[in-house]
Amino acid sequence: MLDDLKREVLKANLMLESEKLVRLTWGNVSGIDRDKGLFVIKPSGVPYSALEAGHLVVVDLEGKVVEGDLNPSSDTPTHLVLYREFEGIGGITHTHSVYATMFSQAGVELPCQGTTHADHFYGTVPVVRELTAEEVADDYETNTGLAIAECFRDRNISPLEMPACFQKYHAPFTWGKNAVDSVKNSVALEVCAKMGLGTWQLNANQQGIPAHILNKHYLRKHGPGAYYGQKS
Amino acid sequence: MLDDLKREVLKANLMLESEKLVRLTWGNVSGIDRDKGLFVIKPSGVPYSALEAGHLVVVDLEGKVVEGDLNPSSDTPTHLVLYREFEGIGGITHTHSVYATMFSQAGVELPCQGTTHADHFYGTVPVVRELTAEEVADDYETNTGLAIAECFRDRNISPLEMPACFQKYHAPFTWGKNAVDSVKNSVALEVCAKMGLGTWQLNANQQGIPAHILNKHYLRKHGPGAYYGQKS
Amino acid sequence: MLDDLKREVLKANLMLESEKLVRLTWGNVSGIDRDKGLFVIKPSGVPYSALEAGHLVVVDLEGKVVEGDLNPSSDTPTHLVLYREFEGIGGITHTHSVYATMFSQAGVELPCQGTTHADHFYGTVPVVRELTAEEVADDYETNTGLAIAECFRDRNISPLEMPACFQKYHAPFTWGKNAVDSVKNSVALEVCAKMGLGTWQLNANQQGIPAHILNKHYLRKHGPGAYYGQKS
Amino acid sequence: MLDDLKREVLKANLMLESEKLVRLTWGNVSGIDRDKGLFVIKPSGVPYSALEAGHLVVVDLEGKVVEGDLNPSSDTPTHLVLYREFEGIGGITHTHSVYATMFSQAGVELPCQGTTHADHFYGTVPVVRELTAEEVADDYETNTGLAIAECFRDRNISPLEMPACFQKYHAPFTWGKNAVDSVKNSVALEVCAKMGLGTWQLNANQQGIPAHILNKHYLRKHGPGAYYGQKS
Repeated sequence: MLDDLKREVLKANLMLESEKLVRLTWGNVSGIDRDKGLFVIKPSGVPYSALEAGHLVVVDLEGKVVEGDLNPSSDTPTHLVLYREFEGIGGITHTHSVYATMFSQAGVELPCQGTTHADHFYGTVPVVRELTAEEVADDYETNTGLAIAECFRDRNISPLEMPACFQKYHAPFTWGKNAVDSVKNSVALEVCAKMGLGTWQLNANQQGIPAHILNKHYLRKHGPGAYYGQKS
Repeated sequence: MLDDLKREVLKANLMLESEKLVRLTWGNVSGIDRDKGLFVIKPSGVPYSALEAGHLVVVDLEGKVVEGDLNPSSDTPTHLVLYREFEGIGGITHTHSVYATMFSQAGVELPCQGTTHADHFYGTVPVVRELTAEEVADDYETNTGLAIAECFRDRNISPLEMPACFQKYHAPFTWGKNAVDSVKNSVALEVCAKMGLGTWQLNANQQGIPAHILNKHYLRKHGPGAYYGQKS
Repeated sequence: MLDDLKREVLKANLMLESEKLVRLTWGNVSGIDRDKGLFVIKPSGVPYSALEAGHLVVVDLEGKVVEGDLNPSSDTPTHLVLYREFEGIGGITHTHSVYATMFSQAGVELPCQGTTHADHFYGTVPVVRELTAEEVADDYETNTGLAIAECFRDRNISPLEMPACFQKYHAPFTWGKNAVDSVKNSVALEVCAKMGLGTWQLNANQQGIPAHILNKHYLRKHGPGAYYGQKS
Repeated sequence: MLDDLKREVLKANLMLESEKLVRLTWGNVSGIDRDKGLFVIKPSGVPYSALEAGHLVVVDLEGKVVEGDLNPSSDTPTHLVLYREFEGIGGITHTHSVYATMFSQAGVELPCQGTTHADHFYGTVPVVRELTAEEVADDYETNTGLAIAECFRDRNISPLEMPACFQKYHAPFTWGKNAVDSVKNSVALEVCAKMGLGTWQLNANQQGIPAHILNKHYLRKHGPGAYYGQKS
């Protein structure tokens, strides 16, 4: 079932290595079929080089494994919550990419410092609070997703305009229109994080670009007036 | 038409990936035929791995697409202005290469700190001011080119001796004798930017090399007395 | 003899290059057969690209070469001591990987700053003291192993929960369940060291994650309640 | 003539790219036949990917080209001086490798901070002073070699024990027993420079290792009592 989606989710997971976002098995991508209410996700602990479409696990929006012989990623409950809370998204990527993880570990948010950022993220990438001892003990992975959703709701951030966050003491999560798009947002986040650290090392006072440049770059790639790329 | 030029511009665009100047589709190269008054540029949003000579777009110096089925790069108006304003140049490269973009985002100029820089850039690489809200609203990409030309004119910098700039809050532009040469200047700028950050981390007071060393290195590679390389 | 073990130790040594942990010949991996009391180790100074299973050297727990035509790694006495002192370990890796070596040279310990670390190392990675002039003159490589064992004993650190250390002025040692597992811990240590430096550059006050998150991540991958990966 | 030497010098020049010490054509290696008093060097400005043994240029110790159709490297007079001044060396490498060049540009010497350094360089890597305006005008490349020789003579540094220096505002030079060995020293210098910057970022007070550890590591790889590697 869901053969096309599995092919795309496989491709997206293999991009984690080719785009140098992961080492060992530290990352996973999923994609959802909204009509069927099912998502496809990487199995836990399987090396990318050995991954085949048939290994991918199909999960429903109650968290039940519908198809697949392997255990799904241990982060599956986090993906599940994000699909339920963020209605417009079609794919999710979680990595421990080096520079984005530095921001997560440091608990430092990333303001929009330039157009590379503005092309993908509309404003400051937020840090989502760490979980309490109770939340960890209760259901760690589910509560991770709930903390992300809470952050976006409380701060009134649109997950479609800001497809990324830094989970404190942990690592980034990104999402997108589909699985491959969510990986591209992970690439953009990693590069922007690396640029952000260096920008501050060159100029500790640099905080962010003027709003009119942010708007221009975000909107020339996204939304009804976009003119970047080809008509599909 | 312009088959030789297309081959060279294709090669130059593919160098963006092999020289590790770009991620995703964040860069474009063009080259011009001055006799015909036409330039060839990458189409917008096409992955480098899928790029063929037949995809390249031919544009005249009024900005009219003369040949090509795809939309040209969204940065085409910037290239156009630079070809009109900087008469001696034959190729232009725009990337978001990581270290050069840090300088753009930080708004920090790069003085000549050593001979790697002196071999390519005669003096300090300037930061071009960000655009005003009016300039962005009016014609963002054209005004980007005009701001670069204004910077070089106002500061009396020769674009042939300084084939690079940092566009503030954005990223670098470089140019050269032809398309491939403009990519080589992007490589040199990226390496010099990385070296520049590290040089200041080692020695915050380092500002630049003595003029006699700058002159020697620039002039042994450029101009009538050059003796680097082979007679062509 | 020990053909399966040799194959695994060969694979583990070749991972040093593919995982970018070494340059030139700066690293070695060994693996032990506890039943036979013999370990297999890389020969000294042989390039990884030329390494074959037949080149590996078999050594007993008295340090006597039991099989092999080449000299074993000059670090063999350190491996020997660690196999004798740390009973549960099955493989050892020594590299001069860049970021972990920075911590060794700086004499700075690495606290657990995030879950990447917590997935592999239960607490702070210790710095092992440098050897005295007498220890160096007497038997440098053996005394290196003894200093590591002393550090773990004196500070009451479990080598199974903390399979890594920074040897001061030298470089990291890691170990694991087997040879390949010890290389994976070297990968994790190198990445965590790089993240650690950047985390402090972003936030000099960041010291470490709350205990409940450390416990959760370490224990979801290790020990009786682990649920990461597949049932073997 | 000198076919074996040419093969080795070709191999050494190709290592510049495979060891990631160069971009574009920013580096050159030479090797000498001391009996014949002739050295073989890379031609100027030729890309490594196009380089063949037949392109290499043979030069005598008066600087006269004895064989070869192409111009030798523009740095040939520097190599010539070093072969005349440093009698025991058999090969020379010049690159603009990124981290070693940072030290050159910053004018900062690299003390021995750990055993990676001690395995290759016996003490602090010196910064050689920049040339005066007169030296540059007179004969830049010859005077570069003379400044290096002057530095080692004045400071009583043995070029055999310290096969590396940072030319101020320029970049590193290394040498060795032969051409390949000089490239290996460039690899070691680049890695030690990167580690050195990071070590100081972690611990600004770290200055260097105790003498007994430096001696041990240098002497276990070099000199009559060396026991690293295989008997040749």
